[in-house]
Order: sequence, then structure tokens, then C-alpha cells
Amino acid sequence: MTAISKSDWLSSLAWNEQGLVPAIAQDAQTKEILMFAWMNREALEETVATNRGVYWSRSRSKLWRKGEESGHVQRVKEVRIDCDSDVVLLLIDQIGVACHTGRRSCFFTQLIGGQWVAVDAPTVDPESVYK
Amino acid sequence: MTAISKSDWLSSLAWNEQGLVPAIAQDAQTKEILMFAWMNREALEETVATNRGVYWSRSRSKLWRKGEESGHVQRVKEVRIDCDSDVVLLLIDQIGVACHTGRRSCFFTQLIGGQWVAVDAPTVDPESVYK
Repeated sequence: MTAISKSDWLSSLAWNEQGLVPAIAQDAQTKEILMFAWMNREALEETVATNRGVYWSRSRSKLWRKGEESGHVQRVKEVRIDCDSDVVLLLIDQIGVACHTGRRSCFFTQLIGGQWVAVDAPTVDPESVYK
Repeated sequence: MTAISKSDWLSSLAWNEQGLVPAIAQDAQTKEILMFAWMNREALEETVATNRGVYWSRSRSKLWRKGEESGHVQRVKEVRIDCDSDVVLLLIDQIGVACHTGRRSCFFTQLIGGQWVAVDAPTVDPESVYK
């Protein structure tokens, strides 16, 4: 009998040349897409271990535990990957808001008549969301 | 008076070092996330001009007009970007299925007890979906 390593599920992902995969966070109830970020192995492992959304901040080159300072945390209900094993989808309950602008979702800008228009308004003070 | 170029909305996106942005296709009605792919400028421009999902195939290094051979096309109802202008979200009506495996969505694999499990079954013959 061969023992199966606990981390095999991590190894089977197709990490890119920077050791990252794109990650989409979707509201588990409304199905609204809340944000898009990147994960390295450590971020995904911690996400699964803690059931909290943890990402890799490419701009700050460090783990980004969503909401760890603001309280706007993500409770992870389900983790999925796509058919190429190179994109992660998190089904989450978002406490507060996902976007640093104070909006529930980062995807608030719509192309209308050749112009990008912000179609959703902030629901909380952006200052309260950072990190 | 300054004439505003029609392509200004394209230039305002934060294209990555390969000239690409990630693109998420979401069912406009059910909000199910159907697939994830990449777009270059030309793909996004054609998507908006034709209201059909057009992507950039990184493996084949060419435009990928989703469904042009199989008929599994995507009618684009809405185009959004995220707060960093570096991710595109398409709200679409998917004719047939999005995934090359014959499933409606590419995100049919869920992490359950440390194992990746295919939780959704194909609804059409995969042979009918390619391209």
C-alpha cells in the first residue's frame, strides 16, 4: 500500500512560471464575482487549512490574508479548479466587502457606448477595507 | 475640441507584459462561472464589435473565436473590468457548453477531503465542443 501525501492535491495544479495560479472569488450565495487575485502554493494551502481566503500579493511579494487588518475576511465554502488545473475558484461568504474601493465587488466598471462607467457605488468607506 | 479615439477604452486597460489580460466568462442568467481564458487587444476589440466571446489562445498563439467550428458560441451581454483594469469579465449567454470536456462549465472539479473530484458530468459529447 502506498501512502498518499497530503499535498498531492497541491502538486497536481499547473502553477505558472512564477509559481502562481489565478484565483476567482465568487459569492457562494448570489454567485456574484467579487474579486480576482493570484495564489502561490502556500496561499492555497493556507486557504484550505483555514477556510479563509489567502492570496499572494504580487505587488508586495507576500501572502495576503484577505481582511486580516480590516475584518473583511472571506469564509471559504468550496474550492474548485478548472479543466486545465490552472485556475482556482473559491466559493465564499464575504464578510463586508471585497473591493478596496469600498464596493462589494471589484467588477463595478462596465463598458457602455465605448466608455468605462462605474455602475456600482461603494457601500462602505474605502479606508475601512484596506488589507 | 479634442476628438476622442474609439479605442481609448482599450488603451486604458492594464495589459500585462505579454499584452494580455485574464478574462472570465460568466453566465448572464445563472451567474455560473463558465470558463477562464486570456485576451489580447484584438480579441477584446473583436468581442465588443461582434458581441461574441473571442480570446487569445496562448497555446496556439492565435485568436480563438469560441465556438466558430463547434457552434458553441458565446453571446456577450455585458463587458466589465475590475478595479485595477487588468481583468475582464464577460456576462454571456452560452450556446451549448463552454468546456471542451462537454460540460457546461470548466470549473467542475472540487476539492473534497484532500482530493480533486469531478462533481459535474458532461452534458454533450466532448468531440462536438472542440473549438
